[in-house]
Formats: sequence, structure tokens, C-alpha cells
Amino acid sequence: MLNFDKAGGLVAAIAQDADTGQVLMIAWMNEEAFRETVRSKRAVYFSRSRNRLWRKGEESGHVQEVRSIAVDCDGDAVLLKVKQIGGAACHEGYASCFFRELTDGDLFRVVGERVFDPKAVYGK
Amino acid sequence: MLNFDKAGGLVAAIAQDADTGQVLMIAWMNEEAFRETVRSKRAVYFSRSRNRLWRKGEESGHVQEVRSIAVDCDGDAVLLKVKQIGGAACHEGYASCFFRELTDGDLFRVVGERVFDPKAVYGK
Repeated sequence: MLNFDKAGGLVAAIAQDADTGQVLMIAWMNEEAFRETVRSKRAVYFSRSRNRLWRKGEESGHVQEVRSIAVDCDGDAVLLKVKQIGGAACHEGYASCFFRELTDGDLFRVVGERVFDPKAVYGK
Repeated sequence: MLNFDKAGGLVAAIAQDADTGQVLMIAWMNEEAFRETVRSKRAVYFSRSRNRLWRKGEESGHVQEVRSIAVDCDGDAVLLKVKQIGGAACHEGYASCFFRELTDGDLFRVVGERVFDPKAVYGK
């Protein structure tokens, strides 16, 4: 069902809070990341910037426990329903990476509240 | 906030049902698609297969009325909260394109129900 070749090696992976339905983040998975996610029931992505597997929470401890995995009609995207440990998926400390919303003008305003201080978690 | 250049010209666009929270689909937007989406308050994507703007619903009439637009921390993805006219985002007739879910084995099973018959809508 999933077609990594067609997707250039990487499928899109959307993480959604299993309880609240909040969309938390989007990242990428190669086949190895997908298989490890299925096996470990924790979200594992492929970091394009670091060019390696990214076990979500490996640094922060904020892992994502995977409750279900769905695949889309094209076979080039997956939807993970997760329990987000630590309450925040975003490295900037917000529950969701989508914490800025377009206003009526052409500007984005912050709509989320910080769950943690990134400096305290990542030390930078 | 959105960085089309960094994203290779296309940002990922996730459509989520504004009322139910169901994730409906993922597609792509170039800057023109994004600007038309903002202006028209209807979802406009960029079709990579057809290499042109794709006004969602242009063929089926199943447009997406956009209620809000959020951008992620990296500036390479947007989250649209939409009202899906016609009840189905997927061209296969399901409410969501993510209508197959991984089972305990290595198989996906259909978890959604068809809202419409694709042949009746698209005539093919």
C-alpha cells in the first residue's frame, strides 16, 4: 500500500493527537523509519536536514507512542495517531508545530501556548 | 513565515475537517496556490502530477471552504481547517484519503465508508 519508490524514498508522515485530534506535526519517513515505527510503536522519522533516522524524543524524551497508522489513497503519506509524551511535539515548546495562524491581514499570530521552555529541554 | 524557496517551491498542505478534526488529505501548494487559497477562502493546491493549480472540487464540485490556515515552525507546511462540501475529500469516495489502517499484521484494512461512488462523480 505504501509506495516509497514513487514517493522518492520518503513518504509524508502526519502526527495527530489520538485523544484531542490536534494535528501536531508533519515529518518524513523512509522505509526503515516506517518499519521501526511499526515495530517499536514509537514514531521514528527520517530527518532530511540531518540525513539520518530521527527517533522522535531521542533528545527531549518527548516520544510519540503510536496508537494507529493509516495510509492515504496515493500510498505516499501516513497518518499516525499518537500519544505525545511531555505534552509538546514542537521543538519550540508548543503542543503543535502549527502554532501560528493566519490573521485577516497577511500576518500570522501565535495561537498556541508554550508547554515547555526549549532552552531548558535542549540546552540551547 | 512560509518559506517556499526553502521548500523547493512547494509546501505541504494538510486539510483537516474543521468540525470533526478528521484529517482529510495532504497535498501541495506553490505560492500562487497559497495566495489564491487565502484570497478565495477555498482550498487551491498545486498538482504535481498535472503540473498546474488544482482548485479542489473543480471537477467534482466538492470544494473545501477554508476556515483557518496555520503554518508550522519550519515554514514549510500549512494546516487548513476546512468544511468539506460533498462530505468526501478523497477522489475514491471516502471522507478522508486516510481510509486504510495498518492492522496487527502487515496489512492495511479499509476503515472508512464510501460517501460517494467515484464513477458517478467523475464518470470514469
